[in-house]
Amino acid sequence: MEFTPRKEPVIYVVEPYGGSIRKHSPSLPLIFVDDAAVTRGDGIFESLLVRGGKAANLDRHKERFAASARAMDLPDPMLDKWEQATAMAIADYTGAGNAGELVEAKCTWTYTRGRASTGRPSAWVVVGPIEESVLEQRAHGVKVMTTPRLWQVAQELPAKTLNYAATMATLRLARSRGFEDVIFIDPDTGRVLEGATSTVVVVKGDKLRTPAGRGILPGTTQAALFEAAAAQGFRAKSKEMTVDYLKGADSVWLVSSVRTAARVTQVDETVLPAPKNEAELRRLIAEAAAH
Amino acid sequence: MEFTPRKEPVIYVVEPYGGSIRKHSPSLPLIFVDDAAVTRGDGIFESLLVRGGKAANLDRHKERFAASARAMDLPDPMLDKWEQATAMAIADYTGAGNAGELVEAKCTWTYTRGRASTGRPSAWVVVGPIEESVLEQRAHGVKVMTTPRLWQVAQELPAKTLNYAATMATLRLARSRGFEDVIFIDPDTGRVLEGATSTVVVVKGDKLRTPAGRGILPGTTQAALFEAAAAQGFRAKSKEMTVDYLKGADSVWLVSSVRTAARVTQVDETVLPAPKNEAELRRLIAEAAAH
Repeated sequence: MEFTPRKEPVIYVVEPYGGSIRKHSPSLPLIFVDDAAVTRGDGIFESLLVRGGKAANLDRHKERFAASARAMDLPDPMLDKWEQATAMAIADYTGAGNAGELVEAKCTWTYTRGRASTGRPSAWVVVGPIEESVLEQRAHGVKVMTTPRLWQVAQELPAKTLNYAATMATLRLARSRGFEDVIFIDPDTGRVLEGATSTVVVVKGDKLRTPAGRGILPGTTQAALFEAAAAQGFRAKSKEMTVDYLKGADSVWLVSSVRTAARVTQVDETVLPAPKNEAELRRLIAEAAAH
Repeated sequence: MEFTPRKEPVIYVVEPYGGSIRKHSPSLPLIFVDDAAVTRGDGIFESLLVRGGKAANLDRHKERFAASARAMDLPDPMLDKWEQATAMAIADYTGAGNAGELVEAKCTWTYTRGRASTGRPSAWVVVGPIEESVLEQRAHGVKVMTTPRLWQVAQELPAKTLNYAATMATLRLARSRGFEDVIFIDPDTGRVLEGATSTVVVVKGDKLRTPAGRGILPGTTQAALFEAAAAQGFRAKSKEMTVDYLKGADSVWLVSSVRTAARVTQVDETVLPAPKNEAELRRLIAEAAAH
């Protein structure tokens, strides 16, 4: 059975203090010029994978979203409303009947400090198609440039904020040099931190490792993967690591909600060949990401 | 002659590649959910003081705006269009006749990477009232908390981006402790950097000093002030400095376009009394800021 995904996203506005959830036309603007998201990047978000007619790893995303809101002194999000709006948007996007089961999509939650003129937070859910480049990288992997990160998470509790301008600038630089992604390194210690929008996972034999230490956003997909992998006999834990550790691994992956996993095929000038257990690892990650 | 400032801001949309400048109702949203300003904080801005019916220090703002765009790989802004939209917005806001001369207002330019679905940058100008708290701080000064800044400007060329979430979080922390502003310190060297949204200026005798070194956005008001001050016999230059240098100064000021200057009345627990030449310095800064 074939299904052509809709191109048009579906938007639902969430009332921050409860009340109505309303649909918003994607052909109309939603945000006012005095919204703190626009003037200060003052807001948080989550990206979720939609598969099988539902948002994957929903509990982990709800938990991280609430933690981000706390770290940013935003009012606690009414998580049941976000869940409800998400279900409505997915139903609209995927359409009725069994076809919805076949649709893969991306869902984004955005929650901002809101308009200066009202002081009310702004909140909305979008469900739309996954970019072609993301599907391409999922299938064929990414060449990665390592680069020192000259900024750190300012809060004790890391928040997933909207402030990605410096990350995007770094990605543009990497692309201009023939890479598809970056891995950030702590400039003081040489510790591996994370990808631009993903968590680093390293495989050596039956060991799964993810970078430990400050300055790393906890990964929902990595957490789901480690839980699933442990059940499959892998030994999964976090560990401080250097770039040399990546280069000496059996395989390196960038895991995230929507791309699920991109195998790192090259770190700077070092090519990383496909591991023997590639199919097994792909299946493991895909299942964890869609859980 | 009395003048009650309008509360409602005036918005003009600028076509990024030229063409029409159009007025936009402030009671309607302007920005789409897929705008990079909202999804990534991926854009730049300038805040300008409007006084005497015109935008102050226009050339310095145009220059810094263009530099920010270059640093962020945004298409060169068509500065004549921005200037034109600014003049139109100011004329609308201040109204016809001599009354406009008496109006003080704030003008903001915002320029984003634009919508993911179109790839066209978004660009607009807003002219609106200056917040009461800003006027209050201009008149009565600010108590300042110093705090290490755990992030730095990532690019070689600093850009005035929309990524202020961590700065806003730091300001909230300062306010919860009874301060009105912060001065960021380099965590490695103890160097004074800058205010949350302002440049530090220190006065000792006939010397004006502003912090030198990486990680500081060039200040338009500080530059105008130093030029004006040199003409008045002050010796003005930049210099690396520590918090102790601030505490031992005759006076310390946070200068910025719209607030113009707020005298620092306290640094952490150290009270800084008003200097003898306060009136002279205020006049000097006010004239430079409104130039």
